[in-house]
Amino acid sequence: MNIVDLNCDLGESFGAYQIGNDEAILDYVTSVNVACGFHAGDPTVMRKTVQLALEKQVKIGAHPGLQDLIGFGRRNINISPQEAYDIVVYQIGALNGFLQSEGGRMQHVKPHGALYNMAAKNKDLSRAIAEAVYKVNPELVLFGLSGSELVRAGQAIGLQTANEVFADRTYQQDGSLTSRNEKNALIENDDDAVAQVIRMVKEGKVLSQQGTDVTLKADTICIHGDGAHALSFARHVKKSLELSEITIKSILKY
Amino acid sequence: MNIVDLNCDLGESFGAYQIGNDEAILDYVTSVNVACGFHAGDPTVMRKTVQLALEKQVKIGAHPGLQDLIGFGRRNINISPQEAYDIVVYQIGALNGFLQSEGGRMQHVKPHGALYNMAAKNKDLSRAIAEAVYKVNPELVLFGLSGSELVRAGQAIGLQTANEVFADRTYQQDGSLTSRNEKNALIENDDDAVAQVIRMVKEGKVLSQQGTDVTLKADTICIHGDGAHALSFARHVKKSLELSEITIKSILKY
Amino acid sequence: MNIVDLNCDLGESFGAYQIGNDEAILDYVTSVNVACGFHAGDPTVMRKTVQLALEKQVKIGAHPGLQDLIGFGRRNINISPQEAYDIVVYQIGALNGFLQSEGGRMQHVKPHGALYNMAAKNKDLSRAIAEAVYKVNPELVLFGLSGSELVRAGQAIGLQTANEVFADRTYQQDGSLTSRNEKNALIENDDDAVAQVIRMVKEGKVLSQQGTDVTLKADTICIHGDGAHALSFARHVKKSLELSEITIKSILKY
Amino acid sequence: MNIVDLNCDLGESFGAYQIGNDEAILDYVTSVNVACGFHAGDPTVMRKTVQLALEKQVKIGAHPGLQDLIGFGRRNINISPQEAYDIVVYQIGALNGFLQSEGGRMQHVKPHGALYNMAAKNKDLSRAIAEAVYKVNPELVLFGLSGSELVRAGQAIGLQTANEVFADRTYQQDGSLTSRNEKNALIENDDDAVAQVIRMVKEGKVLSQQGTDVTLKADTICIHGDGAHALSFARHVKKSLELSEITIKSILKY
Repeated sequence: MNIVDLNCDLGESFGAYQIGNDEAILDYVTSVNVACGFHAGDPTVMRKTVQLALEKQVKIGAHPGLQDLIGFGRRNINISPQEAYDIVVYQIGALNGFLQSEGGRMQHVKPHGALYNMAAKNKDLSRAIAEAVYKVNPELVLFGLSGSELVRAGQAIGLQTANEVFADRTYQQDGSLTSRNEKNALIENDDDAVAQVIRMVKEGKVLSQQGTDVTLKADTICIHGDGAHALSFARHVKKSLELSEITIKSILKY
Repeated sequence: MNIVDLNCDLGESFGAYQIGNDEAILDYVTSVNVACGFHAGDPTVMRKTVQLALEKQVKIGAHPGLQDLIGFGRRNINISPQEAYDIVVYQIGALNGFLQSEGGRMQHVKPHGALYNMAAKNKDLSRAIAEAVYKVNPELVLFGLSGSELVRAGQAIGLQTANEVFADRTYQQDGSLTSRNEKNALIENDDDAVAQVIRMVKEGKVLSQQGTDVTLKADTICIHGDGAHALSFARHVKKSLELSEITIKSILKY
Repeated sequence: MNIVDLNCDLGESFGAYQIGNDEAILDYVTSVNVACGFHAGDPTVMRKTVQLALEKQVKIGAHPGLQDLIGFGRRNINISPQEAYDIVVYQIGALNGFLQSEGGRMQHVKPHGALYNMAAKNKDLSRAIAEAVYKVNPELVLFGLSGSELVRAGQAIGLQTANEVFADRTYQQDGSLTSRNEKNALIENDDDAVAQVIRMVKEGKVLSQQGTDVTLKADTICIHGDGAHALSFARHVKKSLELSEITIKSILKY
Repeated sequence: MNIVDLNCDLGESFGAYQIGNDEAILDYVTSVNVACGFHAGDPTVMRKTVQLALEKQVKIGAHPGLQDLIGFGRRNINISPQEAYDIVVYQIGALNGFLQSEGGRMQHVKPHGALYNMAAKNKDLSRAIAEAVYKVNPELVLFGLSGSELVRAGQAIGLQTANEVFADRTYQQDGSLTSRNEKNALIENDDDAVAQVIRMVKEGKVLSQQGTDVTLKADTICIHGDGAHALSFARHVKKSLELSEITIKSILKY
């Protein structure tokens, strides 16, 4: 039996600025990654997001990012592993504040944007992030790019990990995502995206941009909550997975 | 027998900017209020500060402030009670991250600067802050200006509270502190400051600027860790309290 | 002959966050107030906004706000007059950078949000803001609430001023705007709003919430560029003014 | 006859945080680079710094940095050339606000920290920065690492440039500075530092860490204003240059 988690970034609004269809997308996912006020989100948005996710019984994770609101956490900053450790502890803690006050529990941690991508390839950063998660709470699940250094670092320190795959992104033959700066980074056709996802879950394989198959594990699938057709795509992915007899459920049960 | 806690703000450095004699002042206090990255402090400073305080076995509290680094949290901002609630939950949570990762425990919460002063007089703000503290962890102690709305709000919701008095500040006949914008706000003479503190602890009284005695409770005394003679003043206060047979110890034992 | 300027806030997006229909609204106004990176806007947004406005030959002004991105500059912060002076000089300068690099010229300065509202009633703040504008460039026009302290301070220091009225806001009998926190702050009916504007321009009068007429001067009308029906309202106002034989043009000619 | 400019970073305090001996160091330098509020500095600090420098008749330049207060602008951020352009225009403009309001004139622009170092080797970034300076005011002088891409980009676009050398930093055989992350990055011995500077000015040569001489041009020397013995070192450098018959004067005369 095939099982997979569907996750989505959430709570990326800030002050007067609104992003995403947070409430609507919650109907299609089993886990959400909540921005923690560094690259996006603010305390008020975090509280509301946690309330919404608890209401819809979707599992909640922290989505710590670089201290770069203007760049939405997407620009690499050459932080030290110690800085990575510190900002991850801080942001998990901050979100935990809202989980405690709302009576919820954190399932996982998934670094955001440039922090996620740098950690995928950098052992020292990955180790620091995994250690931060572990030291705050060893029962948290660490989400990382499937097969990446981050997943390995999580396993090495003793964390449960979740290999993440992307529905609408293309892959390179080394298993990394095609950079957003390159053409073909995104899969524009929804049916192609869905077919790729189903193959990743069922066969553990994806066709790379170089034409060769890459072997990977798909514990959780990332879909996006913003953009014009995010909701219809989410609905499409969910329905197609179900039709393919793939069970969609969160990583942890509680 | 007279007992009092001695507290001090800590961890107010930020990035390349250093403030205070954090390590040295820890020898004179029993509780510290750690800045949480809004008005001062950053994740790296917070981790180091928590490590230092744990090493010296001084009790740790969160010192949440307004989102106003440039103003050091000292300028009133007309935030709503909901905003106050949200920023307090966030900051307690963030500091808790470091306590969890370092194996420590939080004793108390003391709002900083303008948030502290606004809450002293504003019932709605006080209630929101007390509720934030209570909902994150009902065992936390709420520090507030002695006799203020904040202390009352803490008691009303069921929190343990600590009435705070100031060694080097003068008082008005309504029990409020003389504003820093006015002359005579600070007690410049150390012996006068010490005498005021001892009287507050032993007699529960302070002579106001209007010449009348004000009755107040002194559970904890705030001293400052920065400034030229902070350390010698701290030493002086500590020694004088001891000579007056006042026992200095933290609010909670653990 | 009746003449009036139509102005609108512009360039309030920030990083990945988009607000407003900047390009479209430019077809209906003669002056724009460009956010300068404190309460909204960022360097990239400012450059693009200046380029757009120059292309459409609309006059450009600085829209300096409080250092409060999370609050969009709408929360009062009790800054000193000196701080007000400094942040206004800084923000005018920053926008001027883009005007110089794009070959444009600044027409005016209009404080934003809480800074605008505090200045309307506070003489010291108003004087500081007027002085900041004057010292950077005495040929700039100062926009302020019609009849407010800010307009008076501008006149006192020797600046050209523009009395601003609001199309969709109701007035109090002292000439101030009804606070957004109160009911009836906004005029929901477009025809009512347009009628109010035309009367302010032609007769120099507005009916206050207390039922009495207030006398005021209308040199420039503020309309809003964001929100669902901003564009249709802007079109409606513009057309109605023209039908009433009111000439719409910017404060300065160049 | 040998002539050289002595420059120093200034105005790096922020809010309640003080850094540097700004007033004292002004007696030893002929040009200062004023932080513009991104990596350090704030509007109030900028005004005071400009006032001080004008009083002491020292030439003033903008010192734009990355939007990274927590990292003091020292951490590389992979910004696009367009972003570099925009943040440089903004910051020059902001400082110009204070020069206009105080009746001063800007001599030069020197990027700070990571922006300076990235630009030294990256043609696209250098071109963008040089273009930003040129478009705001083509009479500004661009300061860059001696022989770097930034100096070349300045010359290519038609700006006057100043090749900068460092008194207390060691060099690599390609003319770059030894990274601060490596040992021997700093010259600890003052006499060695002074000897290196004098040789750079008089002979246009410096001994690299690899033991070979590097040819470079020394139009301006950077000294630091913070740190324990900054003032005595500044005095030492100045005196030694004068004794070596090197004339110390700013790049531009006015």
